Amino acid sequence: MTVWKKFSKISWIALLGLIVAIEPALAEDAPTTEVQYILNTFLFLVCGFLVMFMAAGFAMLESGLVRSKNTATICLKNIVLYAVSGFMFYLVGYNLLYAGVDGGFIGSFSIWGPDDATALGGDFSGGYASSSDWFFQMVFVATAASVVSGTVAERIKFWPFLGFVVVLSGFIYPVIAAWQWGGGWLSEMGFADFAGSTLVHSTGGWCALTGAIILGARKGKYDAEGRVAPIPGSNLPLATLGTFILWLGWFGFNGGSQLALGTAADAIAISNIFINTNMSAVGGTIAAAILTQVIYKKVDLSMTLNGAIGGLVSITAGPDTPTLASAFLIGAVGGVIVVFVVPLLDKLKIDDVVGAISAHLACGIWGTMIVPATNADTSFVTQAIGVLSIGAFVIVASAIVWTVLKATVGIRCSAEDEELGLDRAELGMEAYPEFGRGSQTM
Amino acid sequence: MTVWKKFSKISWIALLGLIVAIEPALAEDAPTTEVQYILNTFLFLVCGFLVMFMAAGFAMLESGLVRSKNTATICLKNIVLYAVSGFMFYLVGYNLLYAGVDGGFIGSFSIWGPDDATALGGDFSGGYASSSDWFFQMVFVATAASVVSGTVAERIKFWPFLGFVVVLSGFIYPVIAAWQWGGGWLSEMGFADFAGSTLVHSTGGWCALTGAIILGARKGKYDAEGRVAPIPGSNLPLATLGTFILWLGWFGFNGGSQLALGTAADAIAISNIFINTNMSAVGGTIAAAILTQVIYKKVDLSMTLNGAIGGLVSITAGPDTPTLASAFLIGAVGGVIVVFVVPLLDKLKIDDVVGAISAHLACGIWGTMIVPATNADTSFVTQAIGVLSIGAFVIVASAIVWTVLKATVGIRCSAEDEELGLDRAELGMEAYPEFGRGSQTM
Amino acid sequence: MTVWKKFSKISWIALLGLIVAIEPALAEDAPTTEVQYILNTFLFLVCGFLVMFMAAGFAMLESGLVRSKNTATICLKNIVLYAVSGFMFYLVGYNLLYAGVDGGFIGSFSIWGPDDATALGGDFSGGYASSSDWFFQMVFVATAASVVSGTVAERIKFWPFLGFVVVLSGFIYPVIAAWQWGGGWLSEMGFADFAGSTLVHSTGGWCALTGAIILGARKGKYDAEGRVAPIPGSNLPLATLGTFILWLGWFGFNGGSQLALGTAADAIAISNIFINTNMSAVGGTIAAAILTQVIYKKVDLSMTLNGAIGGLVSITAGPDTPTLASAFLIGAVGGVIVVFVVPLLDKLKIDDVVGAISAHLACGIWGTMIVPATNADTSFVTQAIGVLSIGAFVIVASAIVWTVLKATVGIRCSAEDEELGLDRAELGMEAYPEFGRGSQTM
Repeated sequence: MTVWKKFSKISWIALLGLIVAIEPALAEDAPTTEVQYILNTFLFLVCGFLVMFMAAGFAMLESGLVRSKNTATICLKNIVLYAVSGFMFYLVGYNLLYAGVDGGFIGSFSIWGPDDATALGGDFSGGYASSSDWFFQMVFVATAASVVSGTVAERIKFWPFLGFVVVLSGFIYPVIAAWQWGGGWLSEMGFADFAGSTLVHSTGGWCALTGAIILGARKGKYDAEGRVAPIPGSNLPLATLGTFILWLGWFGFNGGSQLALGTAADAIAISNIFINTNMSAVGGTIAAAILTQVIYKKVDLSMTLNGAIGGLVSITAGPDTPTLASAFLIGAVGGVIVVFVVPLLDKLKIDDVVGAISAHLACGIWGTMIVPATNADTSFVTQAIGVLSIGAFVIVASAIVWTVLKATVGIRCSAEDEELGLDRAELGMEAYPEFGRGSQTM
Repeated sequence: MTVWKKFSKISWIALLGLIVAIEPALAEDAPTTEVQYILNTFLFLVCGFLVMFMAAGFAMLESGLVRSKNTATICLKNIVLYAVSGFMFYLVGYNLLYAGVDGGFIGSFSIWGPDDATALGGDFSGGYASSSDWFFQMVFVATAASVVSGTVAERIKFWPFLGFVVVLSGFIYPVIAAWQWGGGWLSEMGFADFAGSTLVHSTGGWCALTGAIILGARKGKYDAEGRVAPIPGSNLPLATLGTFILWLGWFGFNGGSQLALGTAADAIAISNIFINTNMSAVGGTIAAAILTQVIYKKVDLSMTLNGAIGGLVSITAGPDTPTLASAFLIGAVGGVIVVFVVPLLDKLKIDDVVGAISAHLACGIWGTMIVPATNADTSFVTQAIGVLSIGAFVIVASAIVWTVLKATVGIRCSAEDEELGLDRAELGMEAYPEFGRGSQTM
Repeated sequence: MTVWKKFSKISWIALLGLIVAIEPALAEDAPTTEVQYILNTFLFLVCGFLVMFMAAGFAMLESGLVRSKNTATICLKNIVLYAVSGFMFYLVGYNLLYAGVDGGFIGSFSIWGPDDATALGGDFSGGYASSSDWFFQMVFVATAASVVSGTVAERIKFWPFLGFVVVLSGFIYPVIAAWQWGGGWLSEMGFADFAGSTLVHSTGGWCALTGAIILGARKGKYDAEGRVAPIPGSNLPLATLGTFILWLGWFGFNGGSQLALGTAADAIAISNIFINTNMSAVGGTIAAAILTQVIYKKVDLSMTLNGAIGGLVSITAGPDTPTLASAFLIGAVGGVIVVFVVPLLDKLKIDDVVGAISAHLACGIWGTMIVPATNADTSFVTQAIGVLSIGAFVIVASAIVWTVLKATVGIRCSAEDEELGLDRAELGMEAYPEFGRGSQTM
């Protein structure tokens, strides 16, 4: 404001000539830059709190899909991983992702801090409060980490898992995200991943996949003849609630990734993103429900919930360009993918407790590869390069971290602890101490 | 602000001459049309995500109020109905409701698509992004469908229920909503239903009522002598959570129905709607709690939860005009209605599993009829015409649909499936496989 | 707005002379006062609905931490207390807090009503819709009351508890809040409590402490030799969900306490508040998790959840001034406080069912006293005066209320009812009628 005062005193006279000279329809209907600054900032805050709430969604989804003897542990993991990933993103992640990547591979190693001096001086060209941007980016990191926790549940040790989260949120995710959102080499090449089908969801999914392989399956899940013993989740209403919360949060995840609400064009774009995000989840839900009915003669609730999530992941790479019909189809294919990949992983004896690899990794790849179908500014080749390069990096990096953790502190709990349940073994408590446990022997 | 004040104090006199000379509607303090466009759009998105989350509220409320052997099914129904109703509203509903109703009875049969060309061309007179409006209207449809699912729970077959949802969200709701919100004959007559006590809640309630009658009661609910066997809900904290989520979502439901945030007058109206909505729920909650204590000598939690919902439904037809005291009374009467209508339905052997007919239909009628008490622009006669005409249409239409479904695919599960529970019968799974079920034999 | 275009085309030339003639401080880059009015109002509404949802958070947290035989009662208490406290704040509280305190001790006894005449007349200097402000302040009252309900759970009678809530929300809280937020003597002295570490959380905590002492401990919690029998919570995923909801709601609690979104400076402040609030909770979570591992050799989930809450309470007195590093430390100390105060209370045989005294009272004091470390405009002496004076008033007032209730209607349920559980005794129902209860004999 002070800047503006100075400006106005000095330059009104000069401005007069200009106004007379040119067509004075000069955006007098547009929001002022300060209004735009406020609206952009508020968008980050509102969408950010929606994405933050996805941490609760993952916690409920996973609580519902594990056995009750491991439920308290998965709750603990979800709240602590949200805390740890936010802390690491402050200590290392943000600047590694954003500071001076400049077409390259990596930002700088430094602690992030807010910087709003120019805006406080009256120059609003920065566009939004730096802390609102940090908040919005920070909550994304936790999402990637949450994907992992579900897959490796019921047999991983608590503290080593957190060790993995430290590396994922401080290094692995920031590095690959720097390639694209930090303005690195992938973005220069024209890769498109609007809100992170690949950057967030596949990254989490690759980490989950390497973790599941290196950890091994839960005891009793696969027998020697390759038969799969179903291990049902202990609390399906919580899993349903978690899915609804994720669906809600996804409006913030994709909508906020427009990064601006300062113009009518932004508002229109965000609105289209909202309805496409919703319609893709609709497609995934309906496809999974129908398909499980057709294949198994029973509608499968867990699969339908994962179908919804698969639809959401599928649209995330490009929620701005499809029509509603395309969004429905993109999501429906995501739902189909979930229904087929879940048993495929079982055939490979890769034990994914909550189905996160199917919903986040497989659908993340699908969503990224289909972007060119609705967005003429992208190409299948570039999309494939992005998917493969990020996949390769995350596979290698995460495999190294899991292996180092395994070789040093160990990542898998003892067979006795697994039998007993991690809640009693690692936490010394039970999630539902008063409820009978019919499947306790599993 | 101080700058502006200074300016205005110094220069109003100078400005006066100018204002007199030219068109004096000089709105330089008003938001620009583009800012209004953004704010209106953002209101739809924020209120829309709140209403979307009501789907989770219904899912939890109903999960908590059914028996555990039917819990997974009700979860599945709630997420799939949200998906299906959104899809139908896209395919048929929206344009049937809004496109060219023009004082008549029905819009046009066509697929909806966003149209923001004028705004993108710089003319913001449309007021908001078309997709944001669609999003907000779409989430309302699911609410109507959710009302039905609770009443007919525990004995309806899954796919036929979805068939009903298809017709409700694609045809029944859009048609009666066209009469009022689409600019049809009821709106021309002066009917008032601000956010849908009648259009949404009673519509859902009438469908629930015809469904409950045509389906019949659950086995064991009423015996030959007319005695009522209470069938308690299996998870009351989830029912409580669901009620809180509905209460939260209702701020979006009623607040967003102001349809604009572009002026201070809109902001004031929305604020009044928020506090009236809250106060009416307060009235319903307190009235139901006290009344159950007085009548039954025990406070009844389920009834109190339904009292809160009854209060919310009651204010929905006119949340903008009452004082806080009136809002409290309107809601309190809603709570009283719930407490008396629930046993009345039992006397009539109409088996409403979650109390939705009481809370949504009875309170929806009450809320619509009481509007003239606080809104001088309305009349009891017109309100009655709206209630009766919509009631008649929905009763007939829904009864036809239920009957056709019953005669063709059948709507009621077999007695064995009902005994076993729909979760095992239709889904092949259990909601809580590890928890003892003391009432399993019920 | 077409008016404005017309105006601009016709009159720019005429305006030019005027602009040159007068002081050209014309701030056309700043938001207009009407835009500011709308944004301020919308901030209250959005943050208000987040804080409202905290009522659900408390309900879930407490549902999860009590035994299943008292779960329905705690659900009922939480929804009714939200209703009652809002009603009392309307009847008495708001005006007692805000109307004409003027450096003194108390406002006026009168019913609140909205007043937006000036804004509707085109003068937006009031800054926001009065109802939006009332809504935001109202939801704070319920928070204070919710703190109490957790501590005194499992043995207090329902209606007397509500009697206490009436006095707390209608009198105790409004009076001490008048001293500061109403512009009373404490605010004139320079006391700082941005969003209510002391005013809301410690107030609730003091009431909980006096209540716990006057009520006495639950049967079987402490034996004659002073040994503590752990009474584990019955549903830890719900407690986790509750904590996540509280964390979400706290963005509204602290962010909305900026009370304005009309300038870029406000937007920046709110953004900083968001990230500091989050980081303090991160600190509390991590500190409690690590500390319980170190002390008990097991990570404790309940303690970690309370650590998160302790971190949130700790930052609430001053979320606007710390750096992220300071916010982390402030929260981490809060987490440590929780871990040490919980067993300390047990040593004193003060039975706090959910740990609310530790998280809300102890951390509330800590958070208030540490403000001067990051805010040069405050002093430790003034902060101590605020903490002590409010503490003294609330202790005395709440002790009187509890004692009067005890002496008249009685506050403690009978030993048989406590044994049976309040759900069956007072509500005649069970929260989970179908689940086995392994700890029912506790």
